[in-house]
Amino acid sequence: MTSIDETADGGEPDTGLLAPVRAGTAAEAATGDSAVLQALLDAEAALTRAQCTLGLAPAEAGRRVTDAARPDRFDARSLALRARAGGNPVIPLVADLTREVAELAPEHAEFVHRGATSQDIVDTALMLVAARTLDVITADLLRTAEGLALLAAGHRDTPMPGRTLTQHAVPTTFGLKAAGWRSLVLDAHDRLVRTRATLPAQLGGAAGTLAAFHAYAQQPAAIDGDPGLALTAAYAGELGLATPDLPWHTLRTPIADLAGALAFTAGALGKIAADVLVLSRTEIAEVAEAAGGGSSAMPHKSNPVRATLIASAARQVPALSAVLFGAMTAEDERPAGPWHAEWQPLRDALRLTGGAAQQAAELCAELRIEPERMLRHLDLTEGLILSERLSAALAPVIGRNAAKELLGKASRRVAEHGGTLTDALRQESDALPAELLRALTDPRGYLGSAGALTDRALARTPDRNPR
Amino acid sequence: MTSIDETADGGEPDTGLLAPVRAGTAAEAATGDSAVLQALLDAEAALTRAQCTLGLAPAEAGRRVTDAARPDRFDARSLALRARAGGNPVIPLVADLTREVAELAPEHAEFVHRGATSQDIVDTALMLVAARTLDVITADLLRTAEGLALLAAGHRDTPMPGRTLTQHAVPTTFGLKAAGWRSLVLDAHDRLVRTRATLPAQLGGAAGTLAAFHAYAQQPAAIDGDPGLALTAAYAGELGLATPDLPWHTLRTPIADLAGALAFTAGALGKIAADVLVLSRTEIAEVAEAAGGGSSAMPHKSNPVRATLIASAARQVPALSAVLFGAMTAEDERPAGPWHAEWQPLRDALRLTGGAAQQAAELCAELRIEPERMLRHLDLTEGLILSERLSAALAPVIGRNAAKELLGKASRRVAEHGGTLTDALRQESDALPAELLRALTDPRGYLGSAGALTDRALARTPDRNPR
Amino acid sequence: MTSIDETADGGEPDTGLLAPVRAGTAAEAATGDSAVLQALLDAEAALTRAQCTLGLAPAEAGRRVTDAARPDRFDARSLALRARAGGNPVIPLVADLTREVAELAPEHAEFVHRGATSQDIVDTALMLVAARTLDVITADLLRTAEGLALLAAGHRDTPMPGRTLTQHAVPTTFGLKAAGWRSLVLDAHDRLVRTRATLPAQLGGAAGTLAAFHAYAQQPAAIDGDPGLALTAAYAGELGLATPDLPWHTLRTPIADLAGALAFTAGALGKIAADVLVLSRTEIAEVAEAAGGGSSAMPHKSNPVRATLIASAARQVPALSAVLFGAMTAEDERPAGPWHAEWQPLRDALRLTGGAAQQAAELCAELRIEPERMLRHLDLTEGLILSERLSAALAPVIGRNAAKELLGKASRRVAEHGGTLTDALRQESDALPAELLRALTDPRGYLGSAGALTDRALARTPDRNPR
Amino acid sequence: MTSIDETADGGEPDTGLLAPVRAGTAAEAATGDSAVLQALLDAEAALTRAQCTLGLAPAEAGRRVTDAARPDRFDARSLALRARAGGNPVIPLVADLTREVAELAPEHAEFVHRGATSQDIVDTALMLVAARTLDVITADLLRTAEGLALLAAGHRDTPMPGRTLTQHAVPTTFGLKAAGWRSLVLDAHDRLVRTRATLPAQLGGAAGTLAAFHAYAQQPAAIDGDPGLALTAAYAGELGLATPDLPWHTLRTPIADLAGALAFTAGALGKIAADVLVLSRTEIAEVAEAAGGGSSAMPHKSNPVRATLIASAARQVPALSAVLFGAMTAEDERPAGPWHAEWQPLRDALRLTGGAAQQAAELCAELRIEPERMLRHLDLTEGLILSERLSAALAPVIGRNAAKELLGKASRRVAEHGGTLTDALRQESDALPAELLRALTDPRGYLGSAGALTDRALARTPDRNPR
Repeated sequence: MTSIDETADGGEPDTGLLAPVRAGTAAEAATGDSAVLQALLDAEAALTRAQCTLGLAPAEAGRRVTDAARPDRFDARSLALRARAGGNPVIPLVADLTREVAELAPEHAEFVHRGATSQDIVDTALMLVAARTLDVITADLLRTAEGLALLAAGHRDTPMPGRTLTQHAVPTTFGLKAAGWRSLVLDAHDRLVRTRATLPAQLGGAAGTLAAFHAYAQQPAAIDGDPGLALTAAYAGELGLATPDLPWHTLRTPIADLAGALAFTAGALGKIAADVLVLSRTEIAEVAEAAGGGSSAMPHKSNPVRATLIASAARQVPALSAVLFGAMTAEDERPAGPWHAEWQPLRDALRLTGGAAQQAAELCAELRIEPERMLRHLDLTEGLILSERLSAALAPVIGRNAAKELLGKASRRVAEHGGTLTDALRQESDALPAELLRALTDPRGYLGSAGALTDRALARTPDRNPR
Repeated sequence: MTSIDETADGGEPDTGLLAPVRAGTAAEAATGDSAVLQALLDAEAALTRAQCTLGLAPAEAGRRVTDAARPDRFDARSLALRARAGGNPVIPLVADLTREVAELAPEHAEFVHRGATSQDIVDTALMLVAARTLDVITADLLRTAEGLALLAAGHRDTPMPGRTLTQHAVPTTFGLKAAGWRSLVLDAHDRLVRTRATLPAQLGGAAGTLAAFHAYAQQPAAIDGDPGLALTAAYAGELGLATPDLPWHTLRTPIADLAGALAFTAGALGKIAADVLVLSRTEIAEVAEAAGGGSSAMPHKSNPVRATLIASAARQVPALSAVLFGAMTAEDERPAGPWHAEWQPLRDALRLTGGAAQQAAELCAELRIEPERMLRHLDLTEGLILSERLSAALAPVIGRNAAKELLGKASRRVAEHGGTLTDALRQESDALPAELLRALTDPRGYLGSAGALTDRALARTPDRNPR
Repeated sequence: MTSIDETADGGEPDTGLLAPVRAGTAAEAATGDSAVLQALLDAEAALTRAQCTLGLAPAEAGRRVTDAARPDRFDARSLALRARAGGNPVIPLVADLTREVAELAPEHAEFVHRGATSQDIVDTALMLVAARTLDVITADLLRTAEGLALLAAGHRDTPMPGRTLTQHAVPTTFGLKAAGWRSLVLDAHDRLVRTRATLPAQLGGAAGTLAAFHAYAQQPAAIDGDPGLALTAAYAGELGLATPDLPWHTLRTPIADLAGALAFTAGALGKIAADVLVLSRTEIAEVAEAAGGGSSAMPHKSNPVRATLIASAARQVPALSAVLFGAMTAEDERPAGPWHAEWQPLRDALRLTGGAAQQAAELCAELRIEPERMLRHLDLTEGLILSERLSAALAPVIGRNAAKELLGKASRRVAEHGGTLTDALRQESDALPAELLRALTDPRGYLGSAGALTDRALARTPDRNPR
Repeated sequence: MTSIDETADGGEPDTGLLAPVRAGTAAEAATGDSAVLQALLDAEAALTRAQCTLGLAPAEAGRRVTDAARPDRFDARSLALRARAGGNPVIPLVADLTREVAELAPEHAEFVHRGATSQDIVDTALMLVAARTLDVITADLLRTAEGLALLAAGHRDTPMPGRTLTQHAVPTTFGLKAAGWRSLVLDAHDRLVRTRATLPAQLGGAAGTLAAFHAYAQQPAAIDGDPGLALTAAYAGELGLATPDLPWHTLRTPIADLAGALAFTAGALGKIAADVLVLSRTEIAEVAEAAGGGSSAMPHKSNPVRATLIASAARQVPALSAVLFGAMTAEDERPAGPWHAEWQPLRDALRLTGGAAQQAAELCAELRIEPERMLRHLDLTEGLILSERLSAALAPVIGRNAAKELLGKASRRVAEHGGTLTDALRQESDALPAELLRALTDPRGYLGSAGALTDRALARTPDRNPR
């Protein structure tokens, strides 16, 4: 006997208290239990309507079921509690929906869920939820890309230190950095749009043969062609989802594609956050979030909170995706565990990624850039940041190895005794005239293809109509 | 400017619609946002009281803050939405709690959160939540172990096929299997109990030096010894948590220990579920869940739903734990991302594991065993399941290699032409007399140490008082 | 000072002793250290040749570097040991390659690695390794799909029990199951082929601006357009890799795409393995691996070893992919850790997936199907497997609820007292005439769209020329 | 037919080319295929000797098998290739070992592997490998802790900025930071030592009942008590491993404990690396690796390579541990996949963690600290880093809210117009006399319990003798 008191409570409100990255975002609303309930009901109503379309049920039945399938008639918490008995929420939902229809029109109650299995409804509903959430996310990614395009164009020629393994390497530009961020955001966008376009309805019946629909089809009417295939197409059409080649109860391509595209997106946004966090450091301060976050203890703090929250999402989504990829190993015609393990991770991956995308759009719209600090930092290493360039200039004069040796020596002198690299070099060698040396150590003159790369990257447009 | 309309809604109820394994369980209640809010307020109140104890605040302040720190005075959704601005829910909570205290007793409002940082409160609250949830889980594990002890003792000598790589191998007993399950459950129990005993309060102030408490301590009173250390001990004492050696803002031992112990527990329960799922298969049916789950399509179905839901949890928790272990790489005195990435995965790991434990307790109390089917299955391979034994018996007579060869030949004959292994052997050789052969192919006589192992394993008791 | 004795040993041979799924496979050879060394040298040689093409280096230099860049001239273990000092193997490789070239033609030694950074070479080499391994894997997936097409066509109408949550549900066909497997394999194939086509060369120089190439370009010759962009295109062309829009030192799209496509593929193959493992069970035995694996203890065992090894790979690759997705959060122009964390997981994901693909191809070519056992199993539940169909037939006669109730009652009678569902139904009701009842309980008549779905799925061809 | 050409090659040398963190380390040597082969042979020999001890085999057999079980007599690559047929390397190993013994002493060949199953040997060998590697790792952790103790004691009172969410927060000390690192390293050490002490031998025979040993025991001699239990104890004794309560073929406590302890250790070291990477940044430069890594492009670079490589390990091990925890869900008496999926991740987790530990020991022995830069950085925020302290000082004078408001105002003035916080405060208010203000803004006076905490943490000693 179960210890659940089904009448005890209205469920635990998940206010997002422990998930600020998505609290209050559109993605959170699109993935919450209300949205899931809505999608489950949408799927049930569409299934009945599709049967009407093919003449397998009276048109009136479709209307009545659609009327009854309004979320406010259902108690999500009660469904959740009763879901434990059968392992999924559709079993109690069908009972409640049938009762609702029976109250409106008893003669049509039999057309509720007719021929379907629970997984048809859960999977289809999750595809609806995913599609709706992806629409929100891709819009935020486009906003992010727009903000970044402005930053990249505006700072096409703003020099700053390029950093590798935490150390100043050679100069780069903030424009190239922002163009790179945008490129990654567009990569994420295009992957989500492509995945979005392929999200299929699910219809297979008890074990994927659609046999029950044949049984019902024999009774009222003849259908041209295979009734299972025809019904699947009609059902997908009602929902605006793709028609699958096969029922995919245990062929989890759509889930795996979502796993990949969401992990990609969270990672892409995580890259931006990682850079903002470095560049916001007190000692660096080359960028700042416009509205930094406060502190409960320190009146002066202005924290890079958006980047922090994005980073928190980027750390969670790959693991959730690993669960989803792992669930592809689904035995039989419906697995005992892998399928049930997909629901919450998929929802969490959607809302964490969506929360991060909204934060990123706002972050990129507001980010403050400090070109003067960037420029000043190029001098921090007293010219060492141009050692590669000097190496290239010295090589044809004194040979590559000698150049490397000379620069190593001069670099160590700077590190140990201070002074500039130019001075140190001149003390060691007069291979390059002073004036040339001065010109070669102007970081603004050693930006290589940064501008050309930025221009090329900015010419790219998002892929709005995949295949 | 943020796009959140903070007045829009009361938050999305997370009814557990997509997480039936924990819907309605005690672990769910112990980890929900209400429980988190309670724990946050408990931490704040304890901090003020601890300061009173040391004479750093008037005793009345502790009482007033405790009075005000009642969850029904606070709006979790509003806290969640305002949490985005600073990245955590304590900043708005302190504002609200201060306002509440000010209404009751304006002169004591200043003692709210005095000297603390947000992380002191969030971390302490999560330890309270974890401690309370672990108490629930360990109780369910003990119930599970009790059910399994009964099964193991009752079926100490019930023979069944031992299966390796999906194939019948040699006989074993259901008692040994159940004793093994119990052993794993006790391993999980002991690890959780040990972790539970070490969960510490968190107190470090802005960056882990407890300096603000020194600043406040200078004013009202002298404390014997270091005021930071004294306060930490008093605070932990108020909460029933362990006193940490050091503030652990970025020394995440408690989180990592929880990650390990919860992944272990989910895996241990997952092992039981995996076995129940195999043994419940239509073709095997050696065990059955007492109240199997129904189907929305097929009137006859009785599904192993509890095992399925446990399996769904076991697939998720290791990934959540990987996020938690990964969050140990927390830079500085408070990291930008890793810390924030812990909250939701920790909560999810607790409630999924707790849900699985409750399911397991019920599963093990109710599991139906079918000894007759087990016995019948021992004959399924026509004696092949005893080939190892025959090999051992033949070896001293005709040599080990010849024995192996003979048995291979006879096994192939059975596989290809049917008949029993005994018959096939006798057609090939008369090395063993017929009567002996008959005795050797009685599976009940080839159970080795199964009984002794079961007895030894059942003698083990749970570790109730670690260290 | 490092404690490594660089002369101590020739490195630990990784014979695959702990990874039988890939031991001896083409994917293992394509990803081993020899293959990596080859690819590193290919990248270095191509870079010099590309500079020659643009007139930045004498043509002879390209030939000489290419001559010198032969793996047998290099000691991989020595490179590995010396890699620790700088964190990657290119630093010692450049030293050794420069020395080799200098021996052949001292005047061309300066053109080795000129203008490049270590990451240009490591990333490009890993793309070469990935491309070469994907070619092996996609070929094995095509072989797998061919084997499955034969099975699906040959068993288009072979009925077998459809199983959900481990229980018999309704009949399906083995053809539909095999067609589903094939569909998943083609999904994997198409994703790998699409990813393969986009794998780019890496060229950015020290921090992604290609500035050093500008420095060198100024000296010998003028190039039409931006020399960095021109060189990147020439370099990619030499290698048969795609030309990237931007250097991707910290824009890890190619790695993430590989992560997703490989996790997908391992999961797809894992699904097949999961089914084979279930269907191979002693009690089920509806399929068998042609050459089952033996046992060190039991002469009779024939284990589904290929499926087991595939399953072992499917459990590992998602976690490796999570590491790769996580490495997208790469700070700066070259990150300290995320990049270095990609190398081994990428290689392991490639060789585990490749090993699984080779096993799958062999498995599907050899799998033995037992149609008679499948047919016999359809009777195991005494007709219950057709309860859904009877429900559909009874509903129009006695109403949906009454039908459901009647079938529930009859099903329980069968479960408790034995006998067939037909008999039980007739004892309870005469709503359906005996003859019809007999016809309705023939499982071969309740296969729905199985045939049509199989035909449609088999009409699909692999995507050989993406985009 | 398999496509493996078993004679083709000697296996791919895994030189560590893609895994510099462990290339050439003692942990690599302890986990390589040679070490695994050694451990497999140790297990086989110990099993025979244990049987001799109990009188189940002639003493000479134990000596002969031990003589034959020398790795140089075996070809690991051949074993690996032949392992594919049965799914594990023990099947061919037993064949080869039997042949070797037969050559030495034909009459004792039958005692090789007698009564055992492959898993007995593989699991035991992996425990030996783990035990030997843990000994190496814990020694390196002790070295690391020693280095950190020196740093912590030496810099007990060295003030530096405490940083939270990337921003200066309040002062802390380097001593406290190093003491925290040490505390985490000791936590890791103690967990590994505890796990090490419990690593058990594996002995269960074909399906965990030890039945074959009973069969053989009946022949030569009587044993006091259960022969399976007696043999297990003797076997474990031979190997220096713990005696398990039960065979643990599918009760994976030891593997899961290793997973948790290794992920913990990698995370602990990852924390140190994360801090070193931040503090090494060009703009911060408060610490430096003694022997920074070079660059293939830039002569001046000195990269924090050790920290980078440690960070690369910390990113991989949690995912590997998730695979190991996931493998606890092992069905039956030997699972088809989960077990096989443990081997390589366990080995990789051991050698990555071990590599990181060796790097950490060296890093901590050599780390250069720059107290002057730390001190200078405390002034970077012009006094804002003491805003919390000033808040505490002002509160009793002008009230908490007014103090907070005043400091917020003054902080903004500093941020916008420059100048020091002291000046800004004095322009806004004269609540605190100038002299006191000056004293309050000396960061060395606001270190709270840093010293006391450091002392307490340094008093802790490693746990050398767990229970």
